[in-house]
Amino acid sequence: MARPEPAAVSRVGIVGAGTIGGGWALHFLRHGKDVVVFDPGPQSADALGRMVDRAWPVMEELGLAPGADPGRLRVVSSLEEVLADAQVVQESTPDNLAVKVKLFAEMDAIVAPDVPIVSSTSGFAMTDIQVDCKFPGRTVVGHPFNPPYLMPLVEVVGGARSDAEVVDWTAAFYAATGKRVITMRREVPGFIANRLQGAMRAEALHMIDAGEATVEEIDIAVSNGPGLRWAIMGPLMIQHLAGGEGGIVHSLDGYLKLALKEPRTRLRPPEISDELREALVAGCTREAAGRSVAEIARERDTCLVAILKALESCRSGGEGGS
Amino acid sequence: MARPEPAAVSRVGIVGAGTIGGGWALHFLRHGKDVVVFDPGPQSADALGRMVDRAWPVMEELGLAPGADPGRLRVVSSLEEVLADAQVVQESTPDNLAVKVKLFAEMDAIVAPDVPIVSSTSGFAMTDIQVDCKFPGRTVVGHPFNPPYLMPLVEVVGGARSDAEVVDWTAAFYAATGKRVITMRREVPGFIANRLQGAMRAEALHMIDAGEATVEEIDIAVSNGPGLRWAIMGPLMIQHLAGGEGGIVHSLDGYLKLALKEPRTRLRPPEISDELREALVAGCTREAAGRSVAEIARERDTCLVAILKALESCRSGGEGGS
Repeated sequence: MARPEPAAVSRVGIVGAGTIGGGWALHFLRHGKDVVVFDPGPQSADALGRMVDRAWPVMEELGLAPGADPGRLRVVSSLEEVLADAQVVQESTPDNLAVKVKLFAEMDAIVAPDVPIVSSTSGFAMTDIQVDCKFPGRTVVGHPFNPPYLMPLVEVVGGARSDAEVVDWTAAFYAATGKRVITMRREVPGFIANRLQGAMRAEALHMIDAGEATVEEIDIAVSNGPGLRWAIMGPLMIQHLAGGEGGIVHSLDGYLKLALKEPRTRLRPPEISDELREALVAGCTREAAGRSVAEIARERDTCLVAILKALESCRSGGEGGS
Repeated sequence: MARPEPAAVSRVGIVGAGTIGGGWALHFLRHGKDVVVFDPGPQSADALGRMVDRAWPVMEELGLAPGADPGRLRVVSSLEEVLADAQVVQESTPDNLAVKVKLFAEMDAIVAPDVPIVSSTSGFAMTDIQVDCKFPGRTVVGHPFNPPYLMPLVEVVGGARSDAEVVDWTAAFYAATGKRVITMRREVPGFIANRLQGAMRAEALHMIDAGEATVEEIDIAVSNGPGLRWAIMGPLMIQHLAGGEGGIVHSLDGYLKLALKEPRTRLRPPEISDELREALVAGCTREAAGRSVAEIARERDTCLVAILKALESCRSGGEGGS
């Protein structure tokens, strides 16, 4: 197989030069790659250049890989050119399934069959995108978070006809550029993070619709409340801490039981079956990795103070939209 | 009225010495108050003392008000003692409605009628808690986030028989101690932030239950993805930025429309009526306060870098549970 080792990739092709494609370009430039970009739509090379110029100081502040240089960005005007030398292709066009199906078939016909073609889609399944490809094995989803040059998370998942080997290669490729990768073994519409934030957004929209809260109240509530904790740890570890010394077990017996009995959201949680209970306890125990609730709470406090101070120093005017 | 100005309160009574009551004690001690605590349950004075000792260095790091001294904490052994001199009472016992109804009636019979009695309940309505009080006007909800000595958010809301004046006094009292207060004009079970995080938790539990994701994947996804942004701004301002230069209007036409057509969460969002659309656009416009999407994105980037660096420096081992 001609595919390089994941960490040895030096040439990335990006199809789509909007917010996400441009963000990927910055990320890969920071990590010392040659980046070639083509936009099949109306995005201009000028706008991309301005975005790179604006954000490059941020990349410098975070630290550049050897050889990283914004001059290694090249904007081309055809699909053939962007795909010519790419060792991996990151597709980042707007989320339209029909357009992606056609685009993937076109790319598939041009690019050597061992070059991974990865979609940034924020929710479509690769099974549905790869339908017209002759070499669907190398097609995979690699879903970033906006802005991709700063957010660590990438969700990687293959479709029904993707090779598991390519899924793993793609995950390793991102990890080699400092990303925090989740490799999903099952396709779920919206993957993980977008489903979670989608549920919260849906509740928020319902609350505004029903006159229960305003836009501003919702944003203030999240960014001065649970959002501060979620930057440090996820909702299950938060639930583990909420149980005090008894951890998730105590939490399941108390708060979660109440949440089931009197749901305070429009989405009713599932009944806590023995299997779910076991999965929650085992998962939290693995995450705790031997640390007591008090130890994790101490780490949370240290990080909360660090974040509160960081936010205080970085906010130029007021609450920056919170 | 004998009630002091909100900023002039010097003596706080706390009923309940668990995680939340103890956290309030720390917060008020940091802000230079005398704090008297009574726990009607099994919480020991020793445990509270250990909590204060452990967290006091954090309070020092955040900055102490003049006169702040952990020695101004006093643990007493009866409801009468804790209420004797309190200018405001913060009730923080476990969330059990029947117990709170009884406790509020008891406190109401002891405390002078102009002293606000505030409940930390994480979701019960004051309307339901104040039913047996003779002076329900001074009973209010003041719901903090854990840990109350670090998290800025407090949700304040009165019940059907609460005085609006006391609701406003309570909000001003918290604000004078540096809290970020939302004063709700309407009682909603779970208030705002707990409803929002409850929706996300429900989706997370369903995903684990259905085998779509593991506990660890969910926690990694949130704390390396949307959680990092939510520490900076709420979900509606995030949606505003997701629309690019077109902001929330573009977002409504694109992504949100897709989210309605193909919901990628178990909670379907509401239809975007003209009224809801107007509320969203007006709310985001007020929050943006004249800043362009590019300007807000730049502020987001600056804060994201600051948070990423803060987290890098504060994490002692691995990802601290994320």
